[in-house]
Amino acid sequence: MTVLILTGEEDVTADMVVVHLNGSGVPVVRLDPADLTGGVSLSGEYVHGRFRGHLSTGGRLVSLGGLRSVWVRRPGTPAGHAAQPSAWLTEEASQALYGMLRGCDARWMNHPDAARQARHKPWQLRLAQRCGLPVPATVITTFPRAAREFAERFPDLVVKPVSGAHPQDPPRAVPTSRVAPDTDFSAVAFGPTLLQRRIAKRADIRLTVVGERLLAARKATAPDADPKEVDVRFAAPGSPWEPAGVPPRIADAVRTYLRRAELAYGAFDFAEDSDGTWWFLECNQSGQFGFVEVETGQPIARAIAEWLSRPIPDGPSKLDEAGSTVR
Amino acid sequence: MTVLILTGEEDVTADMVVVHLNGSGVPVVRLDPADLTGGVSLSGEYVHGRFRGHLSTGGRLVSLGGLRSVWVRRPGTPAGHAAQPSAWLTEEASQALYGMLRGCDARWMNHPDAARQARHKPWQLRLAQRCGLPVPATVITTFPRAAREFAERFPDLVVKPVSGAHPQDPPRAVPTSRVAPDTDFSAVAFGPTLLQRRIAKRADIRLTVVGERLLAARKATAPDADPKEVDVRFAAPGSPWEPAGVPPRIADAVRTYLRRAELAYGAFDFAEDSDGTWWFLECNQSGQFGFVEVETGQPIARAIAEWLSRPIPDGPSKLDEAGSTVR
Repeated sequence: MTVLILTGEEDVTADMVVVHLNGSGVPVVRLDPADLTGGVSLSGEYVHGRFRGHLSTGGRLVSLGGLRSVWVRRPGTPAGHAAQPSAWLTEEASQALYGMLRGCDARWMNHPDAARQARHKPWQLRLAQRCGLPVPATVITTFPRAAREFAERFPDLVVKPVSGAHPQDPPRAVPTSRVAPDTDFSAVAFGPTLLQRRIAKRADIRLTVVGERLLAARKATAPDADPKEVDVRFAAPGSPWEPAGVPPRIADAVRTYLRRAELAYGAFDFAEDSDGTWWFLECNQSGQFGFVEVETGQPIARAIAEWLSRPIPDGPSKLDEAGSTVR
Repeated sequence: MTVLILTGEEDVTADMVVVHLNGSGVPVVRLDPADLTGGVSLSGEYVHGRFRGHLSTGGRLVSLGGLRSVWVRRPGTPAGHAAQPSAWLTEEASQALYGMLRGCDARWMNHPDAARQARHKPWQLRLAQRCGLPVPATVITTFPRAAREFAERFPDLVVKPVSGAHPQDPPRAVPTSRVAPDTDFSAVAFGPTLLQRRIAKRADIRLTVVGERLLAARKATAPDADPKEVDVRFAAPGSPWEPAGVPPRIADAVRTYLRRAELAYGAFDFAEDSDGTWWFLECNQSGQFGFVEVETGQPIARAIAEWLSRPIPDGPSKLDEAGSTVR
């Protein structure tokens, strides 16, 4: 049984996982949907109530029935590298490829629908609350008055995008920033605005979850850190990332979160306050892990390889049984 | 408890349903996401483990906790009507609106993720097979040789898009067409091609399913019909659509299909052959029903209104319990 990795040509993070898969002798096929219909070909036949499908890339042919798992890493736009790309060809290639893969019994990291849902931050905050994770007081609003009233109750605020990165080409991350006390909120009427109580943090926490495995890393906030720098991605380099233990309540809650979200992989960001409480900031279903693995030595890539290598569990597939969470 | 309808301003099909909802005194809010952040405003607050959210449109304020159902009819692009529209504003507005709605306990017709999955035709064909519906022999391929071999086994073929309508503006439907016997399949290498055994049909069947209710309509093929016209959408007008009974095996299979697909609404197209067998062609999760209701008098709009009016069932919500199919 083969592991299928959907990603672009240059992806050192995928390389880290492939090394482990090769080491354990698990067959791997790596494929960029952008290479349809150049280097990548596909075929599926529906005859007499049965399905037989194949993918071909770099001269290798793999049966869709022989896939044990699909890792959706950083796939390109389907047919994006075609000699004459078009929205129509992309749509046809996307439906053909993902439509066939969705009909397989392979396990997904992560299933495209679960991934799409998991990107919605308002949904994340609600799910985190329901799983018992501490969530900083937050408002998302287009009402200037609601923003003003929230700022009166919680005077120390940050503002961040409702969605993720700005969709320019290449996408650009938008930093979380502090809100000045005398801010005029009238512009809130022109676009949904996310305001959140600032956590006075003594550390940033990155908790990477692979299946049931938890790997936490902690980066202490420097005592002389500029209080205006709230976003660790843009802060001056300080202490290194170091391995950390996970409080049992948090461990239970994040496992519940991922199970309800039907995700096999998630990278949680928390802010640790002076009491040691971990405040949920977000869960990125495609969060990078290379920098944590390099700084902490934690075996994240190996954990992913092990998850991808597991055999398909017995029992009904998603298409055969409603209500199953096995995707 | 309120019914929320997401659709554009001019939508006579939605009007048909609203008449029934008004008649039974169920509160309805109709909203076009394109009107964010002009005529439509939203606000959601996450404080102390709880969520309180509101939508406002046309001066009416509705609580998100007070929604019983959401009908995703023909929603516009979020913030598409904004004074200064942009991809960034659309992304922010989309995440804010759908992110909050996804966190509610309302029932969906249809949930956006189920709808997205259901649009994949290769996945439809596989699910239909697994539910026991007769599926005409089909190949989807970028291998010219696979197309040629298929045409040798099944000489009487049609070709149709793998995806739905051509994504131009406005989108254009691409007709299903017959494949000439001497066709050169070499161009298959440039884009996935769907070839299907032609069913010599004596009627087209449109089976509209609303929750558990089945409403079938049948349009007999004229004896002198041009055999080149295989696509009922583009054929010369012939017999009218008439109400039809549903064979019990088909009824069981389509109910299973919708349950596994987690869809509350689906419009199935079948071709009825000379033996009376209904061959599955596709299931459109957003298929139009107005023309069937007008020609047959079947109460489809009323059935939709009744489904939307039902109270939220007791029991855990999607966010509280993994594996539930109640969305």
